[in-house]
Formats: sequence, C-alpha cells, structure tokens
Amino acid sequence: MNTKAIVLFSGGQDSATCLAQALSDFPSAVEAITFDYGQRHRIEIIQAQKIAKIANVSLKIIDLSLISQLTKSALTHINIIIEHKEGELPSTFVPGRNHLFLSVAAIMAYQKNCTHIYTGVCQTDYSGYPDCREDFIKSLETTLNLAMSRPIQIHTPLMHLTKAETISLMKKLGRLEWYKETHTCYEGVRPACGQCPACQLRLKGFKEAGVQDPLEYFGTATDLVCDDPLKS
Amino acid sequence: MNTKAIVLFSGGQDSATCLAQALSDFPSAVEAITFDYGQRHRIEIIQAQKIAKIANVSLKIIDLSLISQLTKSALTHINIIIEHKEGELPSTFVPGRNHLFLSVAAIMAYQKNCTHIYTGVCQTDYSGYPDCREDFIKSLETTLNLAMSRPIQIHTPLMHLTKAETISLMKKLGRLEWYKETHTCYEGVRPACGQCPACQLRLKGFKEAGVQDPLEYFGTATDLVCDDPLKS
Repeated sequence: MNTKAIVLFSGGQDSATCLAQALSDFPSAVEAITFDYGQRHRIEIIQAQKIAKIANVSLKIIDLSLISQLTKSALTHINIIIEHKEGELPSTFVPGRNHLFLSVAAIMAYQKNCTHIYTGVCQTDYSGYPDCREDFIKSLETTLNLAMSRPIQIHTPLMHLTKAETISLMKKLGRLEWYKETHTCYEGVRPACGQCPACQLRLKGFKEAGVQDPLEYFGTATDLVCDDPLKS
Repeated sequence: MNTKAIVLFSGGQDSATCLAQALSDFPSAVEAITFDYGQRHRIEIIQAQKIAKIANVSLKIIDLSLISQLTKSALTHINIIIEHKEGELPSTFVPGRNHLFLSVAAIMAYQKNCTHIYTGVCQTDYSGYPDCREDFIKSLETTLNLAMSRPIQIHTPLMHLTKAETISLMKKLGRLEWYKETHTCYEGVRPACGQCPACQLRLKGFKEAGVQDPLEYFGTATDLVCDDPLKS
C-alpha cells in the first residue's frame, strides 16, 4: 500500500472521526498510529486496535513511555486526582504532548514519503491545552517543513466543531457504528460509567446532535446528563 | 539546585563547547541531557558521562530508541555505509532528529520551570541537515512557546561559527581540556583513527585555530589533514 495519510488515533471519539475523514479523503491509503505512553487506561489501546480492525486500517503502536519519565500528570500517574479548577490547566495536562505526538508522526510520515497527518485536536473545547489550538498547529506545520525540508500538512477536521458537530460529521461519513468501540470514560470501564465528566460531556454531545450513542453504559445514562458536566 | 538551563549534550566537541558556554552564562544552574537512540557508537554516551563528571553537571540519559524504530539511517544501522554524495543529504541523516531532541528537552525544561535550552547546532557546516539551520530553530522556538504557553529560549552559540572559531570559543571559556574526552571519530575507536572524515574535519579545525588537539590519535594524526576532508 502507498500510504498517503497518517492518523493520530487514540481510540477515542474524536480521533475515530478523524480516521473516518482521512479514509474519506484518501480511500485505502491511510495508516493509524497510537502512542503507548503509560496512559491511565490500557483499554484505550485495546479499543484503538478493535476500531482499526473494523476500519481495515493498519495500526502501529509506538512506545512513547518517554513521556511518563518527563512529566507528572494525572494521565500517567494513577494517584493524581483528575480535576479542573476554573482558569487553570486541568491536572490531566501533559505539556507538549500533542507537539511530541505530531512530531513523531511527521518523522514516520517522512519515511513513508507521505505528507498528510490527521489529528482530532479541537479548539472549541480545548480545556486549556495550548497544543490543541490552531495557531500552534500552523506554527508546527511551518517548523516541520523547515526541520525536514519537505511539506507536511496537518489536517484538523474537528478544530472548530462542537462535540455535537463532530458526531454529525461522523454520521455524514457513515461510520457512526465505530463509536460503539471508542473509549471515553475516565473510569476506564466498559460498559462506560456514564457519570464521570468525560461520559457526561460525551452524552451531552449526542443529545445535542440528536443521535443515539451506540456505546454501552451502566444504567440509563442519558438521564444523567447535566448542563455543564465539567463544572458540576 | 534550581536548574536554569538544559544542554543537549552528545559527548561531541560542539556540545561540549555549548556546555561550557551554558555554565559560563548560568554558573551552577545547568543540567545536561543525552539521548540514547541506538546510535552507532556507544562510546559517545560513555564520553558524555566522563565530561559531565569533569564539569560537575548532572547528566540525564533519555531513552529515545523510538528513533531507530522510525528511521533507516546510517547512524542507527551499522550495515549502512556512511557516505556523502555532492548535493544529497548524507546517509547519516535522521530526518527530524534535532527537532525531536529539542522538543523532548523543552518538555523536560517545562517540568523544571526552566526556560533556556542550549544546542550545538551549526549552520556553517550543517552538511545539509535542515534542522541545524537558524530559521528552523527560530520557528521551533515559536512553536514550543505556543505548545506550552511558556517562553522557551533555544541558545545556539555555535550557529555561525566555523570549527576553528568553536575551538577558539572553548579556549576563551577555559575548558579546552574537555576536548580530550569528546568523541568525534566515525570508527568509534579511542585513540581516534585520525583518518575518517570526522577526524580529519576535527583536525583541520584545530589546525586553523592554531590550537593543539588534546585528543589521543593513532600515529601522528596532524600529518593526515587534507584540504577538504569530506570530499577527499
């Protein structure tokens, strides 16, 4: 296969939508990569593998345990409490994480003579992660072009979408059923808890999009949605 | 210790000069990092440790074996012949290597509340490595500032120096004796072979600077210098 696009694929809802978009743009010429960096829940990688199989896309798992050597984040250390104080970066923040992911993807792309990278970063609900913003992505594109003397285009199809709009995009792309396998829950359980801030945000998005979430939840999860789950 | 500067330190002549410059700028507030990425010669890391000890600087060795998973370069695969055809990138080129090194250093710097990074990249004799050029460094600085919402300053004291000028700088900084332990030889031997292109380039620099190279060579190495060693 002649790879034309590489998708940063975490096994979550946003990156699954990106994978669908990339496959729509470059049919049969997409590869996915996922990073193993000692994240809180291994279930994310397992689900990424399941979706890649359904999508008939090759998935490369890259060992980036390096990150957990360099940071002290709730995403990588199970004993740090996940919280988000108003006006502060969430404690799940790994500084420069997306920067590193995209840089590694670009080196891989170079080797494959491939110039397109897809990532599901989103400025709309970026929760204070600076390396999800469009100005960062544009600057990194320029830097990578200079670093390797080859054009690299970073596609961010979800950059300005709300969660509901992302779901609508996936519906349009005809891959809604992949969401059954995507992982969102902070508790790391399947069926999903439906109560943690991540589940609540997900359910709010489906409600707004007027789409039934195919994911399995404990209980009748849609009843649990509150107006602003992260601030509840 | 309150770290103020992190130095990318390979154990080579250029990065040793950078370490000396950083220590002159930020006395007793410097840390060094070296990357273990499956490079051809382990001797580089051993020499880096020796020099760090002499300099009384903490040295962190970061496992970046990731790179050898992603590239097929002569630096990381012993069966690829080192050569440099006119107008082409040398076969030792690992695309995006400096970009990755500097990005990892920036994440480490963030954790240490430190904003200064030193690297020995040099545009003067960059041999076609695009991520040694000043326009790349400036662009990466901007990108890292955006990625982590914190100023990161990348110092490149050797950017516009010739090899001879780098040696003169080291003389001025009073650390010429460190060069006895720096590793240059492509053959990976100590005493150095004195004949490979890297040794020849090194010797040419010392000759032009009018300084005696404290490194041990097989035979009378200074006799071996030709006018343009890389094209001989």
